[in-house]
Amino acid sequence: MKKIAILGTGSVAQIVAEKLVELGYEVTLGTRNVSETLAKPENKMAARPAFKVWMDNNPGIKLSTLSEAAAWGELLINATQGVGSVHALKAAGNNNIKGKVLLDIANPLDFSKGMPPSLTVCNTDSLGETIQREFPDVKVVKGLNTMTAFLMVNPSLVPGNHNVFVCGNDASAKTDVIELLKKMGWNDKSIIDMGDISSSRATEMLLPIWVRLWGKLQTPMFNFNIVVANK
Amino acid sequence: MKKIAILGTGSVAQIVAEKLVELGYEVTLGTRNVSETLAKPENKMAARPAFKVWMDNNPGIKLSTLSEAAAWGELLINATQGVGSVHALKAAGNNNIKGKVLLDIANPLDFSKGMPPSLTVCNTDSLGETIQREFPDVKVVKGLNTMTAFLMVNPSLVPGNHNVFVCGNDASAKTDVIELLKKMGWNDKSIIDMGDISSSRATEMLLPIWVRLWGKLQTPMFNFNIVVANK
Repeated sequence: MKKIAILGTGSVAQIVAEKLVELGYEVTLGTRNVSETLAKPENKMAARPAFKVWMDNNPGIKLSTLSEAAAWGELLINATQGVGSVHALKAAGNNNIKGKVLLDIANPLDFSKGMPPSLTVCNTDSLGETIQREFPDVKVVKGLNTMTAFLMVNPSLVPGNHNVFVCGNDASAKTDVIELLKKMGWNDKSIIDMGDISSSRATEMLLPIWVRLWGKLQTPMFNFNIVVANK
Repeated sequence: MKKIAILGTGSVAQIVAEKLVELGYEVTLGTRNVSETLAKPENKMAARPAFKVWMDNNPGIKLSTLSEAAAWGELLINATQGVGSVHALKAAGNNNIKGKVLLDIANPLDFSKGMPPSLTVCNTDSLGETIQREFPDVKVVKGLNTMTAFLMVNPSLVPGNHNVFVCGNDASAKTDVIELLKKMGWNDKSIIDMGDISSSRATEMLLPIWVRLWGKLQTPMFNFNIVVANK
């Protein structure tokens, strides 16, 4: 699969898109409103230029509507905000996404009550499960959601072993995602297959400690490493 | 402080008690019903002998009611099941616990819907916060709740660096707990002060992935290591 559609146009979508182009993929970002996205100003907090400037600097990356991007893509990545993910996938259209692998890297963060955010769904459900339930014909794989975007696509930014968690019901979809992760620099030891999509609960529930560690460490450039006793 | 009262008599309480005696502390376990506890049979699943056999093998450890143990202890450890912790502390009696440091190592696990357990409280609240709110005169410090009991008291069982998280509102209470952790073998690099007691949400929410990793790795002898990029 060489055509990857990324749903979302924020900093996470952009950082992942840049890496995929570098790896030789064709990439289209999908947005609810193309002209509004093209008018997005510089985001100093996230150190991102105006969207149009970024597009000009990355001529290989295309922008289109959610439905056009989803119809075109052979593999889909959900990089929308968690609270809007189901809505964005409905706008993408079930006919355009069905049967495809959807790598869900979003988190159901609730910033409505200030910092640190809580989760809009957790414990007995998750965003990954919600998407799989709403779109049963899509092969949802949860992954990469437990770290900052730069680290997703360049694990060597943090030294030594550390982990990326993969959850999903479809074995071949997980194989496709794991192949993509390996191209991004993740090795066999670092990739942990957590089981079915219900494991998304467990990985999304890492976000509360992630956010607090971010504040504590004063850098987002860290990750979880699961260390096991020698047998 | 040389006298430590542990509320609870299960395998976690026993493993922590053994270590504290080894370190030179006086230890009393508190239970709701002394005679019932003394009659507890062997627990093959947890590889624990009958309670009376364990007591005979550990003559330095005393057993008494929750209120007697709490009144006697200079530092308290909550090793009861999370769902029963507030009830146990009420039975211990506010007059017996007020002003004291309470190291809360329990988790609000809900096994009522089968495995893996969910949490009875999370996201916008936690067991640590619940206890601090119910007993405002107690200095609650959440810690050690993110790993198996053998590792709590012997971190070298897992090689290399890995972390223990400490949360609490009272700085001197955290200092007391950190001193105890160091005696158990935790070093400065491994101890992360997460901030106030609301951070208990974040550390208790590690349990869902802990439980699934336990199943995946087929051993409870693992821990989280936070790996940070070099500056």
